Amino acid sequence: MPELRRDPVVGRWVIISTERPRRPDQFASGGVEAEELAPGEKCPFCESNERMTAPEISAVRPHGSHPNGPGWDIRVIPSISPLLRIEGNLDRHGHGMYDLINARGAHEIVIESPHHLREHELPKEQVVKSFNVILDRVQDLERDPDIKYVLIFKNYGKAAGGGHLHHARTQIIGTPVNLKRVKEELAGAKAYYDYKERCLFCDMLKQEMLYGKRIVAESRHFVALAAFASRFPFETWIVPKEHSCDFYKVERGKIPDLTELMTTVSAKMRKVIGDFPFNFVLHTAPFRRDAAKRGYWETIEWDYHWHFEILPILTRVAGFEWGSGFYINPLPPEDACKSVKEAKV
Amino acid sequence: MPELRRDPVVGRWVIISTERPRRPDQFASGGVEAEELAPGEKCPFCESNERMTAPEISAVRPHGSHPNGPGWDIRVIPSISPLLRIEGNLDRHGHGMYDLINARGAHEIVIESPHHLREHELPKEQVVKSFNVILDRVQDLERDPDIKYVLIFKNYGKAAGGGHLHHARTQIIGTPVNLKRVKEELAGAKAYYDYKERCLFCDMLKQEMLYGKRIVAESRHFVALAAFASRFPFETWIVPKEHSCDFYKVERGKIPDLTELMTTVSAKMRKVIGDFPFNFVLHTAPFRRDAAKRGYWETIEWDYHWHFEILPILTRVAGFEWGSGFYINPLPPEDACKSVKEAKV
Repeated sequence: MPELRRDPVVGRWVIISTERPRRPDQFASGGVEAEELAPGEKCPFCESNERMTAPEISAVRPHGSHPNGPGWDIRVIPSISPLLRIEGNLDRHGHGMYDLINARGAHEIVIESPHHLREHELPKEQVVKSFNVILDRVQDLERDPDIKYVLIFKNYGKAAGGGHLHHARTQIIGTPVNLKRVKEELAGAKAYYDYKERCLFCDMLKQEMLYGKRIVAESRHFVALAAFASRFPFETWIVPKEHSCDFYKVERGKIPDLTELMTTVSAKMRKVIGDFPFNFVLHTAPFRRDAAKRGYWETIEWDYHWHFEILPILTRVAGFEWGSGFYINPLPPEDACKSVKEAKV
Repeated sequence: MPELRRDPVVGRWVIISTERPRRPDQFASGGVEAEELAPGEKCPFCESNERMTAPEISAVRPHGSHPNGPGWDIRVIPSISPLLRIEGNLDRHGHGMYDLINARGAHEIVIESPHHLREHELPKEQVVKSFNVILDRVQDLERDPDIKYVLIFKNYGKAAGGGHLHHARTQIIGTPVNLKRVKEELAGAKAYYDYKERCLFCDMLKQEMLYGKRIVAESRHFVALAAFASRFPFETWIVPKEHSCDFYKVERGKIPDLTELMTTVSAKMRKVIGDFPFNFVLHTAPFRRDAAKRGYWETIEWDYHWHFEILPILTRVAGFEWGSGFYINPLPPEDACKSVKEAKV
């Protein structure tokens, strides 16, 4: 079973694949990653190739077709190379001064079209369906008491770890521990709330709407924002106008509005920077809060505010970033915002 | 002047190059990075090309040659594209709820050979000289009251942000604020010390020496370790056996021993994984501690322990890492250690 190991200095967990590890010499430079499907290679995510994946967890089958066969709109499968497994137990244990947990959790893939389409080729109704399926999956995963957090993300393009299949999909990972990054955000949002008695994100939205130069686009319920301290050129946050700490409690009626804004922003970005690699990450509050109302959990409904982050991967993280935890961004977010906002689509 | 902006949520600073920004459309995908020096392109770091750089800050000129001309062993210059500048003032200020500082600081390059050599081609005596020059530069930078931390690192290879010049060098960056990553390490080390009344790193070394399976190599004064919770395949830490929080107070007599261990380990790693891209980062205590003896600074001499980290860049950071702050490592450090230890050089 893969293993979660805790760095004893900074408390960061690392998933070590002790189960199907690559041999050391397979990491030798010159290992070539495929860019595209090889001639004759089948995409395991396409309709009619259902047998290439593990049995599906759920699917949208509007015409009542059979599981693991064709006739679906959205299909959810266990990851082909899961980082965390649904079977087994946590077994938190120590090894001398070190801490370990079995890599218990969940790793699912939401296949967002039966057809071989990339993210930007998805019809809007498929994106809406995918969001609804994700919400269903999270509600289901919440019932597993060993899962502390559910992370939703997309990797698109080689530089962003998106692989060579190029079939639109979203990943869902349920982890047995709370995430370092989430804890940091909750602690920061709480510190602001404790001082100001207002939500940091609500204040930020208000200031940004007044200032205007970092607002990329807005819809009825959401704002697309070039973050003030963007780590990456064209980093864009999608933030709900109404205060809420939980994406998972979003009114489903708002999903088409969210989809509309996201597809517009993404099309405008493509107009400026072409077919860009990106990571897309949901930032939302942990769902298992009643059992742990203390510290930064206390006022979480008031002080935290869920949002998506679109992170284009156009620059490299290097020694400065690893050593400092800071970032270098060669493009002021105001310039990025202007060019994306003005792009015609 | 470039600007340091603070992320209001997690307190991370980002350097925004507002001075010579690239145009938004220059980030469009397909922008090609050079892999090698173009035919006829001169390396600005080579002897006799001194005029291609800004005037040198210092140099080792054993035969008394003139500054900014040939006849040197090691040469220190201001970065050609500095992230932080020595001129101007900090000007900490706010913009509504946001915080900014002018990018005041220092960004220097230590050129480690007058000849066009890569890192692994450097004769050991050049590495020793370079370490000594770095120690001198840090002592000098410490006199600038606006510099709070000095970060020492190397980027080698394209994937690690090392560029296309392939001339051995180390970067020195002095920052006007303490680093997020350093604060996290100091806080973690202090928490351990508060509980155990022992140094975390000293305990770790003791456990590792007993266990043995993650010890890559050792010299008289230093140990090369495959970190228990390695983020990256072949991640290797170089840790001094004797407790000390300050690299900058290392006895200079130990530098040849450090160099010997580092060059051996690096040669063994190359034997296993070829010409691998890497970042090399020094982790040491902040030097300006007397003015701020509080919180995690209080017991820093006892609880922190300097070390180097060699981070081979053979895998990609993607959505999971950005969203979680955790990492995925497909190679158990024990396997990496075994193969490197056994490599014959």
